[in-house]
Amino acid sequence: MMTQEELKRVAAHRAVEMVTSGMTLGLGTGSTAAHALDRLGDLLRSGELMAVAGVPTSLKTEAHAGRVGIPMLALGGATRIDLSIDGADEVDTELNLVKGRGGSLLREKMIEGSGGKFVVIVDESKLVPRLGCTGAVPVEVVPFGCDRTLGLVRKVFDGLPGFSARLRKVVVGKEEVPFVTDNGNYIVEMFFEDGIRGDLGEISDRLLRITGVVEHGMFIGMATSVVVAKKDGTVAVLHRK
Amino acid sequence: MMTQEELKRVAAHRAVEMVTSGMTLGLGTGSTAAHALDRLGDLLRSGELMAVAGVPTSLKTEAHAGRVGIPMLALGGATRIDLSIDGADEVDTELNLVKGRGGSLLREKMIEGSGGKFVVIVDESKLVPRLGCTGAVPVEVVPFGCDRTLGLVRKVFDGLPGFSARLRKVVVGKEEVPFVTDNGNYIVEMFFEDGIRGDLGEISDRLLRITGVVEHGMFIGMATSVVVAKKDGTVAVLHRK
Repeated sequence: MMTQEELKRVAAHRAVEMVTSGMTLGLGTGSTAAHALDRLGDLLRSGELMAVAGVPTSLKTEAHAGRVGIPMLALGGATRIDLSIDGADEVDTELNLVKGRGGSLLREKMIEGSGGKFVVIVDESKLVPRLGCTGAVPVEVVPFGCDRTLGLVRKVFDGLPGFSARLRKVVVGKEEVPFVTDNGNYIVEMFFEDGIRGDLGEISDRLLRITGVVEHGMFIGMATSVVVAKKDGTVAVLHRK
Repeated sequence: MMTQEELKRVAAHRAVEMVTSGMTLGLGTGSTAAHALDRLGDLLRSGELMAVAGVPTSLKTEAHAGRVGIPMLALGGATRIDLSIDGADEVDTELNLVKGRGGSLLREKMIEGSGGKFVVIVDESKLVPRLGCTGAVPVEVVPFGCDRTLGLVRKVFDGLPGFSARLRKVVVGKEEVPFVTDNGNYIVEMFFEDGIRGDLGEISDRLLRITGVVEHGMFIGMATSVVVAKKDGTVAVLHRK
C-alpha cells in the first residue's frame, strides 16, 4: 500500500506528462500541486522540458516555483494559458470540482478558467457522487455586510434538510476572527448533509447574483482531465465527455 | 428657472415625505442624497419625525448623517430596511438604474436591495431611454487579474459598435493609478454609444459569471419609486409597475 503522499506524487507525475515544451502553465496551490511543481523543476533541469513558463495561483506557489526554477509570468490580459495543473477537494462524476477549502479559490478560478486545458490531480478519496458530500463548499464574500450576505446565501438553500452555512473563522491569539483571503475577502462555508442536488449552473448563478458574493468554490465544466491515484498505486485518467 | 442644486433639493424633500416615524432607512451617497439627509435631520430636530434610524451607504454619508443628528445602525444580518433614499446616474423607462459613477455601488446595492422600498431622487436630465446612454456603466472588479477581467468584460459586448471598456484611473501626484473602491477593488468603466440594448438580466448574469467581477452598477428592478425634479420646478413621482 502506498501512502497518501506517495499517491499524490504518482498522480502529479502522470499529470506533468501532459506538459510539452513551450507551454505556459497555470500552477495550482496545495500539497498535490506541489508535487507537480517539483517534477516540472526536475524536467526543466534535465532538459526534457524547455521554454516552459508558469502563472502561479498563489504567493506560496510563486515561491515554490521560484525555488525549483520554473520561470514565471504574471496573469495579464494577453497571457494565454495552455494547461493548468492543480488539486481539488472533490470531483463529481461529470468532473465538476469543489476547490478552495484551503481558502484560495478566486485566483485559481481565474487562471484555470482561462480557456486552456485544466488537469486535476486527486487521490481516489476525492471522487464523490455529488459536490459537497465530504465537507465545506466555500464562497468568497466582501467583508462589508457579510452577515447580510451570509443570510442571503442561506436563503438560496432555504428549507434544504441538513444545510448550514457559517463564516469561516480562525483563532488569532485567544480570539476568533474571520479568515481573510488573498484578496482581502471573507469565506462563507456551506455544508450539505448529502451533497448538492439540482442544477449546479443555476445554483451558481443564484449565488453570484447576491450582492457581496465575489466567487464560489464550485468549478463547473472547467476540468478537462482528472488524474486519479488509486490506493493500489495505479493511476486512472478521466476525460471530460 | 431653478438651479440644478435647487431641483435636487426639491426632489429630495419630496422623497423624504415618504418617511414615517419608526422607519429604518437606507441612506444614499452623493449630492442629491445629501439634501435628503439634511431634510431628515431637520424633521428629527423639529419632532415631525421620531425614532428613525439610518444605515449609511458610505463613510461620507455616515459622517454627514452624524452631523445632522440621524441615529445610525450598522448593516447586519438582522437589519430590516424599510425605505432607502438615494440618487442615480441614469433611470430608464422601467426604473432600472445606473449607479456608481462616483465609484460607490456595492454597499448601496446591498442596502438598497434589502427588500424595503427604494426611492430614487433625480433631476430630469437623468431620465434615459436605455441605460448607458449618458456615460459610464461601472463594474467593480478584484485587483488581481484585472487585465484579464477587463478582457472578459469586453467579450460580453464583443462586436457591439461603439462599445469600449477601460480601467478607471485617477491621478495621484504625477502618476495615473487605478481608482480603488471602499472595498479595496478596482472599477472597469463600460461605455455604450447608444445605451445597452438587450435583456439586462441576462447581461447582468454574464457579467457576474466572470471570475473577478464583484458587482456592477446596473440596479435592475430595485427602485420602487423615482422622484423627478423638472426644470420648471415641478416634481413628478414615477412608481414601478
